[in-house]
Amino acid sequence: MRIALINPNATASMTATCVAAAEAVKAVGTEIIGLTPQDGPASIEGPYDEAFALPGLIRAALKAEQDGADAVVVACFDDPGLEPLRAALCVPVVGIVEASMNAAASIADRMAVVTTTTRSLPRIRELAHRYGVAERCAIYASKVPVLALESGGYAPVRKTAEQAVAEGAEAIILGCAGMADWVAALHKDLAVPVIDGVAAAVKHAEGLVAQGLKTAKTGGYQFPAHKPFIGQFADDAWPED
Amino acid sequence: MRIALINPNATASMTATCVAAAEAVKAVGTEIIGLTPQDGPASIEGPYDEAFALPGLIRAALKAEQDGADAVVVACFDDPGLEPLRAALCVPVVGIVEASMNAAASIADRMAVVTTTTRSLPRIRELAHRYGVAERCAIYASKVPVLALESGGYAPVRKTAEQAVAEGAEAIILGCAGMADWVAALHKDLAVPVIDGVAAAVKHAEGLVAQGLKTAKTGGYQFPAHKPFIGQFADDAWPED
Amino acid sequence: MRIALINPNATASMTATCVAAAEAVKAVGTEIIGLTPQDGPASIEGPYDEAFALPGLIRAALKAEQDGADAVVVACFDDPGLEPLRAALCVPVVGIVEASMNAAASIADRMAVVTTTTRSLPRIRELAHRYGVAERCAIYASKVPVLALESGGYAPVRKTAEQAVAEGAEAIILGCAGMADWVAALHKDLAVPVIDGVAAAVKHAEGLVAQGLKTAKTGGYQFPAHKPFIGQFADDAWPED
Amino acid sequence: MRIALINPNATASMTATCVAAAEAVKAVGTEIIGLTPQDGPASIEGPYDEAFALPGLIRAALKAEQDGADAVVVACFDDPGLEPLRAALCVPVVGIVEASMNAAASIADRMAVVTTTTRSLPRIRELAHRYGVAERCAIYASKVPVLALESGGYAPVRKTAEQAVAEGAEAIILGCAGMADWVAALHKDLAVPVIDGVAAAVKHAEGLVAQGLKTAKTGGYQFPAHKPFIGQFADDAWPED
Amino acid sequence: MRIALINPNATASMTATCVAAAEAVKAVGTEIIGLTPQDGPASIEGPYDEAFALPGLIRAALKAEQDGADAVVVACFDDPGLEPLRAALCVPVVGIVEASMNAAASIADRMAVVTTTTRSLPRIRELAHRYGVAERCAIYASKVPVLALESGGYAPVRKTAEQAVAEGAEAIILGCAGMADWVAALHKDLAVPVIDGVAAAVKHAEGLVAQGLKTAKTGGYQFPAHKPFIGQFADDAWPED
Amino acid sequence: MRIALINPNATASMTATCVAAAEAVKAVGTEIIGLTPQDGPASIEGPYDEAFALPGLIRAALKAEQDGADAVVVACFDDPGLEPLRAALCVPVVGIVEASMNAAASIADRMAVVTTTTRSLPRIRELAHRYGVAERCAIYASKVPVLALESGGYAPVRKTAEQAVAEGAEAIILGCAGMADWVAALHKDLAVPVIDGVAAAVKHAEGLVAQGLKTAKTGGYQFPAHKPFIGQFADDAWPED
Repeated sequence: MRIALINPNATASMTATCVAAAEAVKAVGTEIIGLTPQDGPASIEGPYDEAFALPGLIRAALKAEQDGADAVVVACFDDPGLEPLRAALCVPVVGIVEASMNAAASIADRMAVVTTTTRSLPRIRELAHRYGVAERCAIYASKVPVLALESGGYAPVRKTAEQAVAEGAEAIILGCAGMADWVAALHKDLAVPVIDGVAAAVKHAEGLVAQGLKTAKTGGYQFPAHKPFIGQFADDAWPED
Repeated sequence: MRIALINPNATASMTATCVAAAEAVKAVGTEIIGLTPQDGPASIEGPYDEAFALPGLIRAALKAEQDGADAVVVACFDDPGLEPLRAALCVPVVGIVEASMNAAASIADRMAVVTTTTRSLPRIRELAHRYGVAERCAIYASKVPVLALESGGYAPVRKTAEQAVAEGAEAIILGCAGMADWVAALHKDLAVPVIDGVAAAVKHAEGLVAQGLKTAKTGGYQFPAHKPFIGQFADDAWPED
Repeated sequence: MRIALINPNATASMTATCVAAAEAVKAVGTEIIGLTPQDGPASIEGPYDEAFALPGLIRAALKAEQDGADAVVVACFDDPGLEPLRAALCVPVVGIVEASMNAAASIADRMAVVTTTTRSLPRIRELAHRYGVAERCAIYASKVPVLALESGGYAPVRKTAEQAVAEGAEAIILGCAGMADWVAALHKDLAVPVIDGVAAAVKHAEGLVAQGLKTAKTGGYQFPAHKPFIGQFADDAWPED
Repeated sequence: MRIALINPNATASMTATCVAAAEAVKAVGTEIIGLTPQDGPASIEGPYDEAFALPGLIRAALKAEQDGADAVVVACFDDPGLEPLRAALCVPVVGIVEASMNAAASIADRMAVVTTTTRSLPRIRELAHRYGVAERCAIYASKVPVLALESGGYAPVRKTAEQAVAEGAEAIILGCAGMADWVAALHKDLAVPVIDGVAAAVKHAEGLVAQGLKTAKTGGYQFPAHKPFIGQFADDAWPED
Repeated sequence: MRIALINPNATASMTATCVAAAEAVKAVGTEIIGLTPQDGPASIEGPYDEAFALPGLIRAALKAEQDGADAVVVACFDDPGLEPLRAALCVPVVGIVEASMNAAASIADRMAVVTTTTRSLPRIRELAHRYGVAERCAIYASKVPVLALESGGYAPVRKTAEQAVAEGAEAIILGCAGMADWVAALHKDLAVPVIDGVAAAVKHAEGLVAQGLKTAKTGGYQFPAHKPFIGQFADDAWPED
Repeated sequence: MRIALINPNATASMTATCVAAAEAVKAVGTEIIGLTPQDGPASIEGPYDEAFALPGLIRAALKAEQDGADAVVVACFDDPGLEPLRAALCVPVVGIVEASMNAAASIADRMAVVTTTTRSLPRIRELAHRYGVAERCAIYASKVPVLALESGGYAPVRKTAEQAVAEGAEAIILGCAGMADWVAALHKDLAVPVIDGVAAAVKHAEGLVAQGLKTAKTGGYQFPAHKPFIGQFADDAWPED
């Protein structure tokens, strides 16, 4: 089984971190294909960055499916592009917020997300509502920018997570794909379960593929309709049947 | 007061329809500036099209603000891009779903949206929830594609609206910017209030500007953070302070 | 266009404050007709006062429509009487809570209402839910009675608003029609957007009228049925067809 | 124990019907005092009537408490005035919607309200939400006006209830105080539990009194604040401490 | 009327406390039959204990109905077993959480539950949602185990209740059947209404019986289907028709 | 990795069906251990059966953990006992409703459950709410009893699923563990994705184990407190620390 792990934060080192996290949990026989879009922001912090990440993300996913991917995981804690990807692809598409909140809901009553900057809070709050955990999920910003995580980000993230635990969180969700390699350290420091969305999403994707499930194409996720696209996106028009 | 009316469906004739609807309701002293993005899909039907409409929409809006617009109206019944635009701009940003549902909520107990294709249903359902009318808003698809509205679309849309009224709707919301010139005819045919989101949004935008309100920049809609963008979007990176 | 601005707090000086706020934002060609009911409480603080304000409010509104008003704005931060007025009138009826929360929702992610006494909190909480902003709207009582606002009320209201901003509010909604002349001062002191419901409601009403919308009369807001009224309200019985 | 049963539909024969229903279920030692306000509409169908029923209802309740009532039941299937009454009184105040929905929730999974005219539907829908049964309560209008119930109303109400049962209702709530004497007949005809709100409310009120409970006066239901009332309501001003 | 008061905490002294609370509020002619199951945990603190309390509770209730009980009250602040009991019995089944939250909702805007250990919090939070009071009910754990209530539990419970009142609660719900004899003392100490669920449930059950209501047997609470049960529960199989 | 697959419907042939479904999707290296409790109902249809299934289910799970299971899957479409099992165990506990709804939410906008008898509808509706899919999940009863599924149940289940698809379902969830071997046939007949909860739960459990996650023990799922249990359950008392 081949899982395309697309990091819409267009920073190759972060993609590598994500791939490593995926490799650590994947099943025997799963191949992880890390992909970094060729167009878009170096990191996604809030809706402006997200908007410019979508075209590159969608192109990368379409190519991945064409190249034989059995599922697509989107490695950004905004779950960007899940809807357009589900419309465009047949293979399952999984977000890391979705997967990590579902995982947390199975092992804890109250959970907390520790994310990067305050720009991400409205979107994560909306996703907690969508995924059914709004009433038992607190959301915290560590105020560490995504691209600063690698250099000294661990300490403030751990401190924010400690606050979350003190205020009732029974499990911590890492609120950025760039934190994917901190699971073990944080779990050791905090003594509560710590969930990385990339790992959770890879396992959820594996599960869907193993069940032979593909995206439903008869309703909300039916294929796009053909129509002309202009300018920079002329080649992205969905083809005629 | 100058209102930039951006039609993210990149079809000039539809923009002209929207501008006409806006001109018909604008206040004395308001200037409507119709804008069609230079990059993107000819029409937006579902999330795939929406994703490719965002960059062109955002660029058009940034330029409009720079050129002196006092507010931005997004003329597509998906409310695409409201979040990134509110982060990127200081002037108020208004969506036509938001404005039309707020208008309907003031004049009717139960309302219905009549939109184009079934691809749009999930998003409109989500927006009805966000705008607080989910329990009193029914959503119907006329199954007329956006670009087919002009040629023979009226009859099936009217028929769908008649069904909505028969099933309890007290007011009809036109679920596509491309229907903006049908308000009078439909109101005459149906004998219930008919709301066009473009008109509603222009009036809501005028109202915000008249009150001297600008988008809050201290929380969820603070300015984007600077970082490199690559490829096709290299020039869209948010500048350093 | 003529907008009847009815202040159900039966205090003429407060009505004058509201009219001034309305005049400051109205469009060219709009006439504001300030009305104070002839029966009812000098101020509305909680449901007991509200109950005794309704008959005078409804009578004033019926007369205003008869006298040619194109819309009615109810200037009290409880949105009293919107339902009976919508049943009794054809012209649009707008509340200041409704309009200010809709305005805030367009320009801010998280908002706060700063109202007068704690008696108003349950009703405002209920309205925040009804208008779809419950999850992103905090509600504070400054503990200044309505009739004490004019003499020294500004300082405690500003202090409460500062607390709201410190706790995450990105925009402040003035939670009493009697605060309508403090928008500019508070905006200057707080450096966040400040919204007065009277101004917001006048603009919303102008918008509905400009769109040619009237209240739907086929469902929840159909005209009252005729029946005898007794005692003090004998003359208020809805007439036979 | 004395329970004031106030029928805000100012029609003495309907009050008598309600009193009879109350007498049939009351405990040994309970005295039912039927009261019909001296000001207000002969029946309440929708929000216009409700607004004009409130002053008479509140005055009757204040007098009842002064005269020694231990609790007040409001016999109208809109639950009008519960909030102002709870602010004005110390004794418990119970509505018939509240009590009947609570009773139904204890004995059935899915329930239905069968009310009179369509004017009442928005309010009952709102109350079903407030009392926590919205997802399992269907609401039907029999289209029989309140004052026509006595002459030939039974057949259409039964027919509507039969439809509700066919569509999944496991228990029927009578949606008008004027139907209070049909419980036995309908229960016999339908073979499902049938609940009259007047009976349910009398028992709920008895229960609160037996527990020694009075309305909380420290928060949302604290006493009204003194201020002048003008015109017709000058004597209704809440007195100074 | 005979009410079976079943205390699924299998501790006879606690049952006696509950019976005393019931006796103090019951109507003339009501007989309270206190029952302690013969199988199960000595106290219920969290879902593990609850699971092992259900068979004994159900058997006791079935026998009570057979012996002529007119209603069943379940005296545990988890409302354990209401669903299976409603399926198995014809007589009404009432829980103490349900009854106390309904009582509190009639007399206070904001309420608080003060329970025993933190193990009970998720379930009570879920029940507050189910009974429609989630947005106005705070939940506190006093951290006193159920079986330690009798020896020195009052002081910490009172302290927790004082905190709840300081944080806005207008009425206190005792969150354990074992606290049933503290109503008077706490009411005196706190000066806010204090509600014991056992008393509230007995009155609610009396009310349902007085109205002649029985559990609906046509939908969600229809009788169980016959099938074999094995092992320890072989005799609990629902009999064939 | 060893996954204990416990079928609380105490019927060995159904357990075998579930194990086969699990074997078909499990990862290399996963061992499925099918377990049928020794005490309880032969099938679970509604809350009465569920109550008597819990002790046997919990005992089987405790023994499975002691015997080295890395996770527990509960194979009944009521998700019985998840809360007590999460309190009692350290290893992850997964329900088939939870897992199948999460899977469906990733691949379809609107879904439907097709279950056995109408007795199960209230519980499944409650779970759809808990898992965040209530607004996009329809629930149907095929009216085939669980133990009749094997003999002629396929045709009516398929017919019910066809109705669900005709009414808008884009994916079908099999609403009983006993239907686990019909996925392929139904998928072929319906041409929409078909989800079996047993398969979905096994993959979700594998995922949690692969991530090294265990149930949080600091809050809602902390270990039970020790106390005596009496009668039939004397040996089930949670041991002292």
